[in-house]
Amino acid sequence: MSSQAFDLLILGSSSASPTSERNPSAQLLNISERYFLIDCAEATQIQLRRFKAKFQAIDHIFISHLHGDHFFGLPGLLSSMHLLGRKQDITIYCPKELKEVMDLLNNVSDTRFNYKINWVFTNNDGLNLLFEDDKVEVYSFPLKHRIFCTGFLFKEKPLPRKVDKYKLDKFRISTADIMLLKNGFDVVNKDGETIKNETVTFSARNPKSYAYCSDTIYNPKIVDFIKGVDLLYHECTFLNDKKERAAQTFHSTAEQAAEIAKSANVKQLLLGHFSARYGDLDQFIAEAKPVFDNCLLATDGKRISI
Amino acid sequence: MSSQAFDLLILGSSSASPTSERNPSAQLLNISERYFLIDCAEATQIQLRRFKAKFQAIDHIFISHLHGDHFFGLPGLLSSMHLLGRKQDITIYCPKELKEVMDLLNNVSDTRFNYKINWVFTNNDGLNLLFEDDKVEVYSFPLKHRIFCTGFLFKEKPLPRKVDKYKLDKFRISTADIMLLKNGFDVVNKDGETIKNETVTFSARNPKSYAYCSDTIYNPKIVDFIKGVDLLYHECTFLNDKKERAAQTFHSTAEQAAEIAKSANVKQLLLGHFSARYGDLDQFIAEAKPVFDNCLLATDGKRISI
Repeated sequence: MSSQAFDLLILGSSSASPTSERNPSAQLLNISERYFLIDCAEATQIQLRRFKAKFQAIDHIFISHLHGDHFFGLPGLLSSMHLLGRKQDITIYCPKELKEVMDLLNNVSDTRFNYKINWVFTNNDGLNLLFEDDKVEVYSFPLKHRIFCTGFLFKEKPLPRKVDKYKLDKFRISTADIMLLKNGFDVVNKDGETIKNETVTFSARNPKSYAYCSDTIYNPKIVDFIKGVDLLYHECTFLNDKKERAAQTFHSTAEQAAEIAKSANVKQLLLGHFSARYGDLDQFIAEAKPVFDNCLLATDGKRISI
Repeated sequence: MSSQAFDLLILGSSSASPTSERNPSAQLLNISERYFLIDCAEATQIQLRRFKAKFQAIDHIFISHLHGDHFFGLPGLLSSMHLLGRKQDITIYCPKELKEVMDLLNNVSDTRFNYKINWVFTNNDGLNLLFEDDKVEVYSFPLKHRIFCTGFLFKEKPLPRKVDKYKLDKFRISTADIMLLKNGFDVVNKDGETIKNETVTFSARNPKSYAYCSDTIYNPKIVDFIKGVDLLYHECTFLNDKKERAAQTFHSTAEQAAEIAKSANVKQLLLGHFSARYGDLDQFIAEAKPVFDNCLLATDGKRISI
């Protein structure tokens, strides 16, 4: 994959229970070779193997909430990482009780991993920066579910400008000045002349963004957090035939997910977290499209280049 | 399946980590339509579905010890049983700390199952009766592993004698007396004559037995508990090339499993719990056979009628 990858791999698209076709929630997001695992249902390590993802490359795991279909695969994944020789740290962003769970599991099994877990606990305080490096920022934001739950927002930082190498020669610019150009500065060439940045560079593509919203009742308050993202994953456990049940269980319908996508003016909507009662997933698309046209289904193994 | 079934389904045959071919430990034993789940690695619920076993029929779960590859699938299985409408009790036989784990998981997820879990805690005191009904007895016995661990012994009770229906008429015996005959008693016929039991009945097959030994270092002390069983499952994580590593990690080799089978004079030996490092499982058979000839491999999905 290129160093500017922004690729999503769906590891599970079912709600609470696995079906023969669909595992519960987990996704792997690759942004410029940073591998972010988002939720980790039971058997996520098996899905990672099945879809040929290198799971030791994962250094950051984000857990939205502590319903089992979003984290029961974490203990097994962390154990396998240990057994297969992992040494490098891993950081887990999650509700604070998850550390208690892992501590108890390692205690009862008398296990001590050969690598360190850094714990970063999520909170309810609006948009909250969890991770940042030179290329990426990741935020959590509150969702409204039966228990404490957050969504996650992954944003590329603005990309460096592209340098037109042909013009470097033409304008007699030293290669030592390329970094200045990429970062938008004007430079002085070998003849002592100032060369305007835009003369020899052009802008890279716009930075990309991905928002993950699972699990949540229909809640227009999240729109501010996810405005204009390139791809929005929004849960739709139900169709409108179960709109009441959706509200009772703090879940959404496909139409409601589309309403959120429309209000937030996102570019594309990814539907997932389907109840096992639905065999034909095209019904979700049929329900969402009249409200928001550019939508697609999360299915296990699907790869989406954002 | 017949009401005298004694059938084993292998749900996982790998040691610590799953491989693309093998899931970690879990087995389903059906004795006369009592379904006993033995260990429950991650993704056991998926294996049950994959091999078309009705998992709501399971009323008894036996967990040998609290290494993750023997119980990380339990929370998900219990959750799915709940979500799919289970109402009847389930009984879990296990080390006592497992209840703490389940309590914490249900606490952090604010979950309360619609069925009751009866907990029966295993101990280190020799052969220990865990379950008994009119057809079956189940015992635990101590194994020697890095943490507290027990094996399990499943024994059919002696089967009722078979009645020769043709002879019932011939000897003018009332059908009301069939239960007496099945239980070995003589009866008085319609003419007032005493009919000897063995005149109209014949003995059923011998009661069957199955012993499950995973995980354990080579330990001849277990022989007394498993003497003469029809089928012995004994772990062999390693081959003799890793005999030292086996001892260090409190596991066994295929040859050692065969030595135990021979000493215990069992009828058949089932090998399993293979380290992921071994691709070709025939090596395990090749190593065991010179010591104990009647042996076979546990592989995922294999069904064995004992």
